[in-house]
Parts: sequence; C-alpha cells; structure tokens
Amino acid sequence: MEQLKTKAYGAKASLIDQLSSLSRMDIERNEPQSDEVLIDILYCGVCHSDLHQVKNDWSNTIYPCVPGHEVVGRITQTGSNVTKFKVGDVVGVGCMIDSCGQCNSCTGGDEQYCEGPVSWTATYNGYMKPNGNGYNTFGGYSTNIVVKESFILNIPDSLDIKAAAPILCAGVTTYSPLRHWQVKAGDKVAIAGLGGLGHMAVMLAKAMGAEVTVLTTSKEKQADAEKLGAHHVIISDDKDAMTQNEKTLDMILVTIPDKFDVNPYISLLKRDGNLVTVGLLGPYKSPVNNMEVAFQRRSMSGSLIGSIKETQEVLDFCAEHSILPEVEIIPIQDINKAYKRMLDEEVRFRFVIDMQSLKDEQ
Amino acid sequence: MEQLKTKAYGAKASLIDQLSSLSRMDIERNEPQSDEVLIDILYCGVCHSDLHQVKNDWSNTIYPCVPGHEVVGRITQTGSNVTKFKVGDVVGVGCMIDSCGQCNSCTGGDEQYCEGPVSWTATYNGYMKPNGNGYNTFGGYSTNIVVKESFILNIPDSLDIKAAAPILCAGVTTYSPLRHWQVKAGDKVAIAGLGGLGHMAVMLAKAMGAEVTVLTTSKEKQADAEKLGAHHVIISDDKDAMTQNEKTLDMILVTIPDKFDVNPYISLLKRDGNLVTVGLLGPYKSPVNNMEVAFQRRSMSGSLIGSIKETQEVLDFCAEHSILPEVEIIPIQDINKAYKRMLDEEVRFRFVIDMQSLKDEQ
Repeated sequence: MEQLKTKAYGAKASLIDQLSSLSRMDIERNEPQSDEVLIDILYCGVCHSDLHQVKNDWSNTIYPCVPGHEVVGRITQTGSNVTKFKVGDVVGVGCMIDSCGQCNSCTGGDEQYCEGPVSWTATYNGYMKPNGNGYNTFGGYSTNIVVKESFILNIPDSLDIKAAAPILCAGVTTYSPLRHWQVKAGDKVAIAGLGGLGHMAVMLAKAMGAEVTVLTTSKEKQADAEKLGAHHVIISDDKDAMTQNEKTLDMILVTIPDKFDVNPYISLLKRDGNLVTVGLLGPYKSPVNNMEVAFQRRSMSGSLIGSIKETQEVLDFCAEHSILPEVEIIPIQDINKAYKRMLDEEVRFRFVIDMQSLKDEQ
Repeated sequence: MEQLKTKAYGAKASLIDQLSSLSRMDIERNEPQSDEVLIDILYCGVCHSDLHQVKNDWSNTIYPCVPGHEVVGRITQTGSNVTKFKVGDVVGVGCMIDSCGQCNSCTGGDEQYCEGPVSWTATYNGYMKPNGNGYNTFGGYSTNIVVKESFILNIPDSLDIKAAAPILCAGVTTYSPLRHWQVKAGDKVAIAGLGGLGHMAVMLAKAMGAEVTVLTTSKEKQADAEKLGAHHVIISDDKDAMTQNEKTLDMILVTIPDKFDVNPYISLLKRDGNLVTVGLLGPYKSPVNNMEVAFQRRSMSGSLIGSIKETQEVLDFCAEHSILPEVEIIPIQDINKAYKRMLDEEVRFRFVIDMQSLKDEQ
C-alpha cells in the first residue's frame, strides 16, 4: 500500500507536568481505498478532550498521539466506489471514522454506541483494523486525512468554513442529547459550563425554542451568556440563587469537563427532570444523594458525542438557523499556548487551527 | 372535637444505640370529619423505613413516633360525606394520607410528588393541618386510624388480608417505577436486593412479562429468588459473573435500603438502560463514574413510593395475578426483636403485625 507523507503536530509521550510539548512530527497515511477519500485539511478545532487525551487522563493514550476530531477540509482524491462525494467538495470529519456496522447500535444509526468488539473507531487514538493490520489513528492536527465516505459529513455552503469545525464535536455532542431527550419549544433547559460545548448548547437549545438558562461559576461569563442568547444566568455558587430556582428546570445539560459536585444541580430539576452530563468522562466529585433524585423522580444520564446522522443534522440545523461557533483562529505553532489558555478558561469559546500554518512549515 | 383513645406502639425518643425501645403508649385521634373514615386496624406491615425513621436516620423524626404505613383494617365509622366506602369494608392505608390537592403533581395524579408548601402528608411522622392546627401524624402500629376517603384503598376480596398489607408500600414502591418506565413483556429487568421491596418487585416484574434477574450479595438468597420466580440470579460480588453480564439489562430496580456502590450495576445496563433506586434515601457510597453512564447513554433515576391511583392498581394487579407478599405474622410485643432481625437480614420477606395482639393488651 502506498503511503502519504503528512505533516502533523502531536504528543510524543505522556505530558504530565510538561504541557508545552506538542511538537511537529511527520506521519504517514495509507492511500485511500475504494470506499475512502483523501481530504486536504483546512481547519481543525481544538477540543478539551484533546487536552485530556494528550495528558493521558483516561489512561488509554497511545503515543505518539496526534489529536484533532473537528476537521474541515477539501476532498482531493476519491476511491473508485465513492459515490456521495467528489473532488473539490468541502467536507467534515468528526469524532468517529469507523464502527462495526453490524451491531444493533450501528444498524440503528447510533454508531457512537457501537457494541462491536472494539466499539467505534475514534478519529484519533482510535483502533483501526483494515485488512487485518491494526494501527492507532492520527487526527486532524495534520495536513491531510483519509476517511471512509460513510463517516464524512457535508458542510453546507452557507456555513463559514473557518468557524464550522467545532460543530463536528462540540455541536453534535450537545445537539444529540437535546434531540434524544426531545427538547421542545417552551422547555426550560439549563446549560452548565460555558466553554466550547456549552456555548454551542446555548445556541442550539435556543433555536429549538427552549427557555435557556446558563449555570456558571464565573460572573465574567454572564455577559457572554446573554450575548449568546441565554434568557437567564445563575451563578452556581450563589446559594440563594440556587435555592430560588429549585424545581424550575426540565433538563440540565452539563458540559463541565472536570470533576464537579452534581447535587446542587439536581435540586434545580422539576419532577421528572433530567440532568445529562456530556463533558465529564470520569467520576463525579462526590456521591449523588438519591434522596434528592427520588423525591421528584428525577434522572441523571450521560451522553457521548452523536451519530453520523445527527452530525449531518446539526450541521444543517446550524446552517438553517445561522448558528456558528465563536472561534479564535490560531496557527498550529501556538497550540501549546492555546492548551494553557484552555486550562485557564481563557478562550471564548473555541480555538480553531488554520492548517495553512502547518503546510507553510518546512 | 371528640378524641378517640387509641393503643399504640412507638418510639418515645431517638433510638441511637438502644434499638429495643419501641414501647406501648396511648395516643389520641380526632373523630372522623365529614370526608373521613375510622378504621379498626387488623394488620400492619413492618417496613425498613420504619426502622430508619425511629432511628432518626433522616434527621426529621418527631418524637413520640408511632410507625406503620402498610395498614389493613375494617371501616367502623364514616363521615357524612363519604360515598365510596361504607362501614364493614376492608380497606388499606399506604404511605400517604393527604396532599395539597392543587399542584400540578396532585391534579395529575402524582400526589407522591406533591409540590405544595408541606408536600404530601406521610401516614406517620407527617405534618397534618386540618382547621389550621398542625400536628404530627401517628401510623398503623395502633388499634385504629382516621383517614380521608380519597386516600383509602379498596382491598380486593380475593387477597388474603393477613398478607396484603405490604402491597401498600413495598408493592407500590416497586410497581410505580416498573410502570412509569414502561416495563413490558420480554424486557430484561434486574432487581437488586431481595428484601421486602425486592421480593415484591420480582413477582410484579415477572407478572408484567419481564425476564427477571435477581442481583444479591447473599448466596443464601439464590433459592429464595428462584422460588419467587426469578429467571436468573447474579451474586453481585462475583466479579466474573458481573463482567459476563455487562450490557445485558434494560432496567435495574435497586431496593437496597442502605449505602451501596452503584458503579458495578451501571455496567450491566444495555445502551439506553436505566437504573432506578427506590430503597436508598441518601447518598450512594461512592461517586458515579459518568464514563460508564455516558458510553452507553445510560440513566440513573430515583422513584418514591407511588400514587393513590397506582396503589389501587397494584392491589388489583396482585389480586388478578395471585401475587401475595411472603409474610411472617408477629404479635406487636415482638416488634423490637423483629427490628433486630430486619437489621440482620433474617426476614423472608416482610413482618406483618397482627393487631389483635395490641387490642388484647390492657
């Protein structure tokens, strides 16, 4: 099989206590097979999970690790059996590039819950096994990527391609639970955490007709929340404000990416209300008090990214409702500074790498 | 207002470190008002929550405390406006004897989630305020009780009145979530914990057509579970058995009355599966790992007793399906021994007090 030389930025080893160490590396990609396309990457979003993954927070990182699962690019080559896309198309790649295709979840259009032997294949740090040879996938902090057409998304013409990339993860990760739990006009929905995911969730929930509250510990984010269209803001460490708002919400979507105490949020839910956590992939900070859960028959759920169908839906939904992520475009050479600012919550709301900066490197 | 002299057993003060101290006391009850009936108590079930309440585990017990919310008795007097019941009827009283009647929950037939200023009125240790004079309610460990007709249940003729009492709490507390989350024929449902609530849940879920698994730490309960009709038993501290059964269950109903680690159970749920905790009214033992919850879009819910409508439904359902609680009849003089045996998990599965034993006391 022919190999494509590809420039990339990645982590060569675990980054504990040495955050500034994503660095330039050269990787190889397989030539596209008959059902695959080669994509010239134009932009790639920087997700908080990239940071978790390069730090090996989930104890599953394989190094070298090239992050990036919010990819927007242009097709430069198509395999012989590709029918839905052609050279020149502007397309997206999100969190997944493969799944077993045969289990109940896959055949039901929920590939993100693939029950196959290795589950779905993540766009980076995923396990890919074509022709029997397993390898670890490299993501979108690179100049090109090769992906099966069935995992590629169409980027609607009206979306600004500089800003669209975060829809592919931050967008669908919040869109999927809002749709799955059937948020409708008039529902009272709160978004906890106002980062990359949270700011998309506010705009999406509002466009679905919900009355949107932002829950944040940061007084500085109040104005941001209002600018994004939130109807209300509650400072979540203001105990009086939290008490006043008990039993008022139908749903809370929590996008906080680190450990937090879920109990104060539970009390805000109405009877039969549901709190869905999408940011945290690990234990909560403290045990849930089932007294609070049971007394109003509340629920707590978790949701993971979204399906390919939902990813296309949210792209189309954003185009239809003129929703665009708020992004700060950076050259790839600034990625380590960007990670530091992400940790310090100094981004409004998503970094996107202009991949020309990598192509221009020697 | 006339007062009725009533014999009772209750706790005079907090029982910390002195469990053997429910004792005989005399209480007074108001004469029935126009919408109330006076019930001569025949049998009263002993619920694990009676133990929590007399020990003040929930920090809300008002002493003296007369427990008992699984009451079966015969009407001996009716108020002038009572239309649905007559003197001589065998009736039941469950966990609630009043609610605001005006909030969304009450008007929607979910009085157990009453949103009124004092929520619903518990049958004992509840706050009742007729004619402006608030008082603390006394439960069914007594010779009679006065209750509004709208909170009284009809005991179907075919149910053995000696054994029916536990349906009024243990029955409806498990029936309500099984119905609310729409368990249907063929669903794979597990019941965790095989005590008073758990043994009812096994029989109810099976009668609904579910394939029932019992999750228990106690190997001794395996035969009991099978006798009750469970299709499978998993010993929950057998790690291999737990691993083999990952992603197999649609619903888990947890009836364990004390702190436990919920994480091993979560892994047993299929995609979109739900774990509902009804026994524990307090914090879990350790924080939930949202990684496990999110990866299969699972949920955790809580549910509290059941509505009056559901209580009548479960009584009728038990009559229709020949389901009866397995009970051990005791005289009230043995109540402290019974509490000790309940703590030691030495009851199969519910104590019921024969109230003749109290009537015979001087």
